Amino acid sequence: MLKNVELKDIQIKDSFWNKYIDLVEEVILPFQWELINDRVEGAEKSYCIQNLRIAAGQMEGEHRGMPFQDTDVGKWLEAVGFSLAKKRNEKLEKIADEAIDLIAAAQCEDGYLNTYFTITGKPRWSNLFEGHELYTAGHLIEAAVAYYQATGKRKILDVMCRFADNIYEVFGKDEGKCHGYPGHPEVELALVKLYKVTGEKKYLELADYFVKARGEQPCYFFAEEGMKNGEFIFPEFADFDMDYAQAHMPLSEQMTAEGHAVRAVYLYSAMADLAGEYKDEKLLKQCETLWENIVQKRMYITGSIGSASYGERFTTDYDLPNNTNYSESCATIGLAMFSNRMFQITREGKYMDIVEKALYNTLLSGIAMDGRHFFYVNPLEVVPEVAEHNPTMRHVKTTRQKWFGVACCPPNIARTLASMGNYMYDVEANTLYSNLFISNEIRTTLECGDIAVKVEADYPRTGEITYQMLHEGVRTFTLAIRKPGFSSQMTVKVNGEEVSYTLDKGYVYLNREWNPQDEVTVLLDVAYRFVRCNPRVRDNIGKIALVKGPWVYCLEEADNGKYLNSIVVDADCEVKPLYDEELLGGTMCAVFEGKKINYDAVGEELYDCAKPVYETLTLKAIPYCAWNNRGKGEMLVWMRDLSV
Amino acid sequence: MLKNVELKDIQIKDSFWNKYIDLVEEVILPFQWELINDRVEGAEKSYCIQNLRIAAGQMEGEHRGMPFQDTDVGKWLEAVGFSLAKKRNEKLEKIADEAIDLIAAAQCEDGYLNTYFTITGKPRWSNLFEGHELYTAGHLIEAAVAYYQATGKRKILDVMCRFADNIYEVFGKDEGKCHGYPGHPEVELALVKLYKVTGEKKYLELADYFVKARGEQPCYFFAEEGMKNGEFIFPEFADFDMDYAQAHMPLSEQMTAEGHAVRAVYLYSAMADLAGEYKDEKLLKQCETLWENIVQKRMYITGSIGSASYGERFTTDYDLPNNTNYSESCATIGLAMFSNRMFQITREGKYMDIVEKALYNTLLSGIAMDGRHFFYVNPLEVVPEVAEHNPTMRHVKTTRQKWFGVACCPPNIARTLASMGNYMYDVEANTLYSNLFISNEIRTTLECGDIAVKVEADYPRTGEITYQMLHEGVRTFTLAIRKPGFSSQMTVKVNGEEVSYTLDKGYVYLNREWNPQDEVTVLLDVAYRFVRCNPRVRDNIGKIALVKGPWVYCLEEADNGKYLNSIVVDADCEVKPLYDEELLGGTMCAVFEGKKINYDAVGEELYDCAKPVYETLTLKAIPYCAWNNRGKGEMLVWMRDLSV
Repeated sequence: MLKNVELKDIQIKDSFWNKYIDLVEEVILPFQWELINDRVEGAEKSYCIQNLRIAAGQMEGEHRGMPFQDTDVGKWLEAVGFSLAKKRNEKLEKIADEAIDLIAAAQCEDGYLNTYFTITGKPRWSNLFEGHELYTAGHLIEAAVAYYQATGKRKILDVMCRFADNIYEVFGKDEGKCHGYPGHPEVELALVKLYKVTGEKKYLELADYFVKARGEQPCYFFAEEGMKNGEFIFPEFADFDMDYAQAHMPLSEQMTAEGHAVRAVYLYSAMADLAGEYKDEKLLKQCETLWENIVQKRMYITGSIGSASYGERFTTDYDLPNNTNYSESCATIGLAMFSNRMFQITREGKYMDIVEKALYNTLLSGIAMDGRHFFYVNPLEVVPEVAEHNPTMRHVKTTRQKWFGVACCPPNIARTLASMGNYMYDVEANTLYSNLFISNEIRTTLECGDIAVKVEADYPRTGEITYQMLHEGVRTFTLAIRKPGFSSQMTVKVNGEEVSYTLDKGYVYLNREWNPQDEVTVLLDVAYRFVRCNPRVRDNIGKIALVKGPWVYCLEEADNGKYLNSIVVDADCEVKPLYDEELLGGTMCAVFEGKKINYDAVGEELYDCAKPVYETLTLKAIPYCAWNNRGKGEMLVWMRDLSV
Repeated sequence: MLKNVELKDIQIKDSFWNKYIDLVEEVILPFQWELINDRVEGAEKSYCIQNLRIAAGQMEGEHRGMPFQDTDVGKWLEAVGFSLAKKRNEKLEKIADEAIDLIAAAQCEDGYLNTYFTITGKPRWSNLFEGHELYTAGHLIEAAVAYYQATGKRKILDVMCRFADNIYEVFGKDEGKCHGYPGHPEVELALVKLYKVTGEKKYLELADYFVKARGEQPCYFFAEEGMKNGEFIFPEFADFDMDYAQAHMPLSEQMTAEGHAVRAVYLYSAMADLAGEYKDEKLLKQCETLWENIVQKRMYITGSIGSASYGERFTTDYDLPNNTNYSESCATIGLAMFSNRMFQITREGKYMDIVEKALYNTLLSGIAMDGRHFFYVNPLEVVPEVAEHNPTMRHVKTTRQKWFGVACCPPNIARTLASMGNYMYDVEANTLYSNLFISNEIRTTLECGDIAVKVEADYPRTGEITYQMLHEGVRTFTLAIRKPGFSSQMTVKVNGEEVSYTLDKGYVYLNREWNPQDEVTVLLDVAYRFVRCNPRVRDNIGKIALVKGPWVYCLEEADNGKYLNSIVVDADCEVKPLYDEELLGGTMCAVFEGKKINYDAVGEELYDCAKPVYETLTLKAIPYCAWNNRGKGEMLVWMRDLSV
């Protein structure tokens, strides 16, 4: 598997991305710390720190919030780790160390760590389907790894190793051990991370056990457990089938992405990890099959997944409703994680295309420019009046929310932004993979020695990207640059001279002696284009969407008035660029002609109405990721196509 | 208010309607009797008769089924009453008398009657929001009235008068009485019926109290009750707002149709009754406003209501999604009941237009031709694979079901079919109103004496209706014939001579001396037409629907293959009639040209696809009421319009 470059070695200096990334250290992490300490007025309470204090014996009280409330601090701490890895910050580190002391104090003597089960006294591991113990463990382990890698401090890593050891004692194939597995996958990929950082093989074995045991017969583990328990923590779980938790058949037989979307892609990420670690070709093939099923049949054009709110889940092939979908921010992040791992194993550019799609659209639509408001749910079509009155859409929010009781998405977005470097580059022996086109400087070491590259781009506003060698002396290595699937062409110049190249699975490999100041210029096709969807997706028949590079565009009421659904666009029309300085501190918009029903001329009859009158008007579209930053209003991605 | 003609005086002999109506006596009532006795294999248990036996002390056991399970026998008995009113049937009457004996035996000494509260011992009237005690009482009262009117037997009427007296003791404005009202309206309209048949004014007063108390402040009755109870019979009710039960503001201020659709239209029916009885112009005006809000902004073209499954409810103006809607059969029946009452007060044809729309479309779509399978939910667009896999549509069934645990719709359909005569005619002094065009013979008495009319029609297959006078001697009276709103013209001939007429609020009044054998021939325009929806309904923008008279048509997969959403139709195309002898024993279909995507030429890519290739094909549409009688398959009402 390809390796990440350490985050501290990548300095991101990008006019588009820094608007979001800088929020993490400056706004989100301090804000989230206040939130998990329940000090933000008007926000839903987290109780996370309070629960830890109670579990640690530092205060009296009952557990409050969800069974998985500990993950709030886990995800926060992981993001802190990523942030510190990029740039140490004494104040933040001090708070984090306090949090770590508290987590350590809440740990049981035998290594077990979970405030819900510790405080309530409910029997440990008695409800794997709903209890989220292993899920919670996973997020804390991920946090421990990130914090250790950033700071070199072992305390939280040791705490989590003890917990992992405890889990290893409890679960496994052996007789006398519990043969269960987590209702919500997450611990699997975390254990692989813990293995990689500690070298302790049993963590990898444990991850492997959890993955392989899933859905195994003779009995459905969760069904048996459920019968034993007789009641549910979450009543709605009573209705969920085994496929909700990817436990409806042995995992090795699962060839379509089913169930809760976040669970699915977290699980598939671990499967990819294991396929990579064990060089398991069959498992890798299965991962590819699952990935293709998602990407070719069950994914929105914005890189989001989960077509249904009930179960927050996948439904069936080509079922992609635009206004009732869940499309959770976390699921998009999980899809990026899964895709990134698949790339690291296969070096195939198609996987990074999906990472890019996810990051440029649904990751960012999940967060407001103030860093304090978030979407869980990311529909492609919203009519506020309908969403607010039709309970079929009660999961859809018409403005980003301050915080949620179940706060998975905000910290997930934060940790992803904080670790963007992990998606931007990979290295292997003497090759540097440049996956994403974000302005930055990178300094790392390949077989040839230390290298330094400065990347300049204003992508996808323009398709020109320059790589300038900053290292001293000559370095012979391979610069591998992704050619995005959407780009019909790609010109590569070295020091001003166009070079020919052969494309290998979506990457251009430039292997040569690089002198200081050598410059590679890449030109990608990021022209505005109207694209069509496969007509097996019934919801998008007769519709088109505007894209520019990885960006998907949308229409907003603020620019185009109400009744966006009545707009009709000629797919061959000219689209003019418009850089809007005002919108979100500068946004690349698109202007084109369309027709729209004149509602002033519409009568009162409900049926048997006159043919509506269409009027030509100039439309303005903005990147989907920028929507809903100007108050509540209609939004639409898929527009009606003028021609049949 | 106009009066109904007694059911025994109307003999329906219609090639279309008798296929359904005859099912009631021949199939549905015997079948339902078996069902409520839990003797039908494979059907969900009713426990209705069993509960009555337990409450009557005739057997031991616990209450099973829903709190309102007693309504199963109530609705069955009401339908029996209507059926016997048309034609006595010794065997059926004997069974009904047994059921009545059992109901009487289950009555408490003080008149109270409800097996759920009696058997469980839960405090009476403690949970009006969810307990359905008054709703259940209402259905039993309706049954009592129908059975008494049919047979003249007083036993069940007396039982229900005692129960109504008991309710009158408990509820009311006076100090010391309970100031509550039913969570599910129904008892109000039933009490008006009881008043009409007994002349006992207090029943009318009680209905008036229940209506007027609704939503009155200073406190929300249901909220206070809920706080007292602390827990819910139905956990999902915890999420429902007061408007779910039309209790969010004083009823007199409610000007839009809100909440649970069945509750709403049952309540509005009672409001109309009270407006008529008390000649309350203000209340009548409010009823008109509510009715207009439904019909002009919240009703499907098929006459169904309830745009959302969650809460089975109204949502907001112009929100009419075609595939996630609830559109419950019972709600359509309630809308017909409300509209019929409004007609009886105002004599305006627009109300009967909606009755006709409801009856010819959604009433009948609710029942299969075998009389044993039913739909609760009546969407206008179904893709079985999606409906079965996307839980957003988990309320949508892809084939009619045998029976339901909550069996409101099947018996509601049965009682409506059994009482069709009540919708067909009204009388007043010396006027006979002919509302619906169903072949029949009617014998009744007007001021002028006995009259008899034979109506022959094959409507809406053709628009020609003949009225032949069968009475002996000369009779001078007014024959009022509805001119349906959809009919652009209406020719009226008397004995072959075209006569001129003036239209009064949708009715043609023919006042003359009628001689034996005089014949009136009416010609309505029932040509096939493509109609458009108000484009404020976003789901139907750019779409057309085919209608013929009151019938709405749909496309089915059985005739037109999969991917009906890809079909495009020219609204100006020629539609040819096709009478399909095979389908449901003869169905009037429609044939026309359209274009459809050739899916054989569609690639595998999900996005960025080639423009699809359309092919011309001949389409066949069938009346919506006849859909889903040839197995599972796609169905579509609103087709894409070729022109923008």
